[in-house]
Amino acid sequence: MRVYNFAAGPSALPLEVLEKARDEFLDFNGTGMSVTEISHRDKAYMQVVAEAENSVRELLKVPEDYCVIFVQGGASTQFAAVPLNLMKNGVADYIVTGNFAKKAWQEGKLYGTANKIGDSSDKIYTYIPDVDKLNYTDGADYVHITSNNTIFGSRFDKFPDCKAPLVADMSSEIFSREIDVKKFGVIYAGAQKNLAPAGVTIVIAKRELIQEPLNICPTMLRWKVQDENGSLYNTPPAFSIYMANLVLNNLKNKGGIKAIQQINEYKSGLLYDFIDGSKLYKNGVEKKFRSIMNVPFVTGSEELDAKFVAEAKKAGLVSLKGHRLVGGMRASIYNAMPVDGVKALIEFMKKFELENA
Amino acid sequence: MRVYNFAAGPSALPLEVLEKARDEFLDFNGTGMSVTEISHRDKAYMQVVAEAENSVRELLKVPEDYCVIFVQGGASTQFAAVPLNLMKNGVADYIVTGNFAKKAWQEGKLYGTANKIGDSSDKIYTYIPDVDKLNYTDGADYVHITSNNTIFGSRFDKFPDCKAPLVADMSSEIFSREIDVKKFGVIYAGAQKNLAPAGVTIVIAKRELIQEPLNICPTMLRWKVQDENGSLYNTPPAFSIYMANLVLNNLKNKGGIKAIQQINEYKSGLLYDFIDGSKLYKNGVEKKFRSIMNVPFVTGSEELDAKFVAEAKKAGLVSLKGHRLVGGMRASIYNAMPVDGVKALIEFMKKFELENA
Repeated sequence: MRVYNFAAGPSALPLEVLEKARDEFLDFNGTGMSVTEISHRDKAYMQVVAEAENSVRELLKVPEDYCVIFVQGGASTQFAAVPLNLMKNGVADYIVTGNFAKKAWQEGKLYGTANKIGDSSDKIYTYIPDVDKLNYTDGADYVHITSNNTIFGSRFDKFPDCKAPLVADMSSEIFSREIDVKKFGVIYAGAQKNLAPAGVTIVIAKRELIQEPLNICPTMLRWKVQDENGSLYNTPPAFSIYMANLVLNNLKNKGGIKAIQQINEYKSGLLYDFIDGSKLYKNGVEKKFRSIMNVPFVTGSEELDAKFVAEAKKAGLVSLKGHRLVGGMRASIYNAMPVDGVKALIEFMKKFELENA
Repeated sequence: MRVYNFAAGPSALPLEVLEKARDEFLDFNGTGMSVTEISHRDKAYMQVVAEAENSVRELLKVPEDYCVIFVQGGASTQFAAVPLNLMKNGVADYIVTGNFAKKAWQEGKLYGTANKIGDSSDKIYTYIPDVDKLNYTDGADYVHITSNNTIFGSRFDKFPDCKAPLVADMSSEIFSREIDVKKFGVIYAGAQKNLAPAGVTIVIAKRELIQEPLNICPTMLRWKVQDENGSLYNTPPAFSIYMANLVLNNLKNKGGIKAIQQINEYKSGLLYDFIDGSKLYKNGVEKKFRSIMNVPFVTGSEELDAKFVAEAKKAGLVSLKGHRLVGGMRASIYNAMPVDGVKALIEFMKKFELENA
């Protein structure tokens, strides 16, 4: 039986995509080889990379003067790549609104002055500081944000209007809502939430910003090098890119970002409305900053939380345990989570509440 | 029809492994999820990583004081990770015996003094310099070699006996022949030849050597950090590690390294003997340095080479085109290439020689 997988990432992928990948797993596109075996220099495979790039450009309306590259190492590797590619003046601003935002900031400090200009840790990252009232540093190389916080379930409702290029880690929300790429200098995202199996990271960067990486930047972390080689400077994470391509095609068939955003708002709306109306469950994030991807909630009793997670698993609702930093539960409801999955979760929550009132 | 895939990497995987992966692609280990969807913190998946590590340790007899970690970015990323983890004194030696050895050396120069103490480019990398007669630098942090040269088809027949820790890129030959891990400080290898689909890189390192990475080393490139987190510091390339685990189990079932080495020597012996006895084909590598993994050969005519590659493809023998740096043909015959594949290639070569005499 297929379960509903609420994991924060790696996470559910569209069933149609999984079925297609399985059906052609031993013979990719009539080549007589698995896509896991084919040379990355084979035209049949290079076509996949080109298609995936084009789909990203189409779906997000990426301007021509931005590169779209597929790299390795997850967003955590980009925490270093960001300063190594951009920190020409040796200074950058960071808005710290969660655990990963903090890690990005700490990594930035390895390479220059990383100013923490915003911080919402005082209320356990349940809000986003007012981006119009922050002290942005004159001459900063960039301003870094984490647009959606996987662990705490908050997200930027609007983005900073800053002079320095805005750099955003969008790992846990890319392709889930419409964004204006032009407002960003760089967007990066690990794939394992809305895009593909773990192993590939997407970087979208304005080309004029990435021409002078620091001398100490490893060649493989130089976005310019990856761009010049069409993401094929060395052997790419071929299977993950292939899967990303299938997921992107699937998303286009479903109507693209606008359509999926409506579904995501509907799904998360159902869940938040139920939580807010219940007596047992609580979500502590300020309403306007609530993520439509990650919905944490607690019962107020650690014992009851543990019981909830265990019983939900038996009911085919898996990976609902919250991150150890917040405890409780977390339902990650990315693009691939069907509406029926959210409804099944709500039904279970109702039943559990009745039984444990 | 399944072809014989002679690609240099990504390359053929054992058919039994592909079939198993396909059969359980939608339901990994009874979890109701694909292995591409499951959380890397799920016990069912963590078990895979632990098993894969143990299999590496068992197959290569890795001593207890060495770590075995799975990282991302390919060997090319390790070209930077090597100096960033090891170059405490700011000086290292490199033996440059091929294209990737040269790239590793050039990357080393970003972080300190990288001495090229050996170089076989004078004869197009068709031999290995005598490792007993090189001028190793006193106080060097390490000596770097590329043990098997994918492009030129040469390999070290014996390894340097140097004072400094020996660091080897074994991407294109790991698990193909017995080695004494104790003789090395660090071994690393991209997986996409003998181990798994592209996307995972294995690093085996003596722990006492990796405790003081340079300050500028990105966290994700710090072997120590990956070791302390059991390769799960961040989301790993989960599917590639899963496939690596299947391939390693498959190799154990086939009798391990000793057994596969015999088969590899037999396969490459058949091919070299045929080439040496033919009038049309030539392999220019000095016999004692010939790789048992990558066998380049030429006809002496670029036109005939192109005809060979095209007709072989029609006969189901694919990806035989040589690297652009050497031209001609190259048969990569990694662990997963069956003896029958090599025999089919030889039959084709005979026929082609007769038809084009």
